[in-house]
Amino acid sequence: MAENGLNIVWHSRSLTKADYYDRNGHRPLVVWFTGLSGSGKSTLAHAAEEALFKKGCYTYILDGDNMRHGLNSDLGFSEADRRENIRRIGEVAKLFVDAGIVVLAAFISPYQEDRDRVRALFEPAEFIEIYVKCDLDTCESRDPKGLYRKARAGQLPQFTGIDSPYEEPQAPELVIDTCRLGVEESVAEIIRFIERRSADGGRRTAVGGR
Amino acid sequence: MAENGLNIVWHSRSLTKADYYDRNGHRPLVVWFTGLSGSGKSTLAHAAEEALFKKGCYTYILDGDNMRHGLNSDLGFSEADRRENIRRIGEVAKLFVDAGIVVLAAFISPYQEDRDRVRALFEPAEFIEIYVKCDLDTCESRDPKGLYRKARAGQLPQFTGIDSPYEEPQAPELVIDTCRLGVEESVAEIIRFIERRSADGGRRTAVGGR
Repeated sequence: MAENGLNIVWHSRSLTKADYYDRNGHRPLVVWFTGLSGSGKSTLAHAAEEALFKKGCYTYILDGDNMRHGLNSDLGFSEADRRENIRRIGEVAKLFVDAGIVVLAAFISPYQEDRDRVRALFEPAEFIEIYVKCDLDTCESRDPKGLYRKARAGQLPQFTGIDSPYEEPQAPELVIDTCRLGVEESVAEIIRFIERRSADGGRRTAVGGR
Repeated sequence: MAENGLNIVWHSRSLTKADYYDRNGHRPLVVWFTGLSGSGKSTLAHAAEEALFKKGCYTYILDGDNMRHGLNSDLGFSEADRRENIRRIGEVAKLFVDAGIVVLAAFISPYQEDRDRVRALFEPAEFIEIYVKCDLDTCESRDPKGLYRKARAGQLPQFTGIDSPYEEPQAPELVIDTCRLGVEESVAEIIRFIERRSADGGRRTAVGGR
């Protein structure tokens, strides 16, 4: 025991991303689903997470349910708050990636600049932007949560697609057209993309172990 | 394929905390280290994480390094900002626990009310508050980052222990006196506590698998 008790050794970091990576047996990733409300982002993210989990990946999902009620419960829907919402989600995703996890994130995230700022937090191979594409009329006809109806009635001001803009992704890694594809086909395409990506660039696969 | 494309089925959540728990083979936990700057919180948290990781636990660490430079880079050190800092860290820890991870969190977290607010986010068995106890003189003599010197020189206003209060934990799960104990003994005591806690209350152990 040193004179002052603890021998303070300042580890910059005992465990690193590489340790979690080695243990989990796959590359950490962010799979970022962007698109209009009702486009199917959340459904696809959950289904893709389940598929990856079944393949043995260490996964987690970030979506409105767990972000808006907790960390971001202090934020509204103004442009500034939406930007801060996405910034924080990006930073949380970065922590999960640092912990070796494949993060599925499903958020309208309407602004290109905000999505680019999130992308910039990661290594190029770690970030996959998926544009869940579907025309407004179809999304509005689905209206799974009744949000478009409320927005049209003026009860949800600044609703994306109605009175707030959605900027289409300029160079997403993947476009999934949910007006044409069903859930199973869409998820299969997403998983195929992730597998291809990791075969191209990874020293190990992103799914299914080493 | 349904008429509107995707058959939107709104999963409330496909995978749940129980799924990650089952897969990881141990209970998720927050181990929250609180104490003065220089008390040894960060050293102990890193060493405890390493010990748990080696036992096969799925772990992650939250500390000033990864929180203040990322998610909380917009916050300063006023009382309001310190509260918000701790609130956000608590919410991030909750996401990690939801993902089945054992989170080691090392923050001065000087206010009892803030620590209690974090505790309230979790089930009682999930939250372990460790008071890393050491008198101010000893902490100041260690001064591993030179912060006390700066604070005494007036360069770091509102520094805990100098011109900002530290409220000692009223009912921590564990007190580690780093004026008396070395790192190895301290870590051993922490791991023992976690093992005892999980043997008492858990349907599975928190460390070392099922």
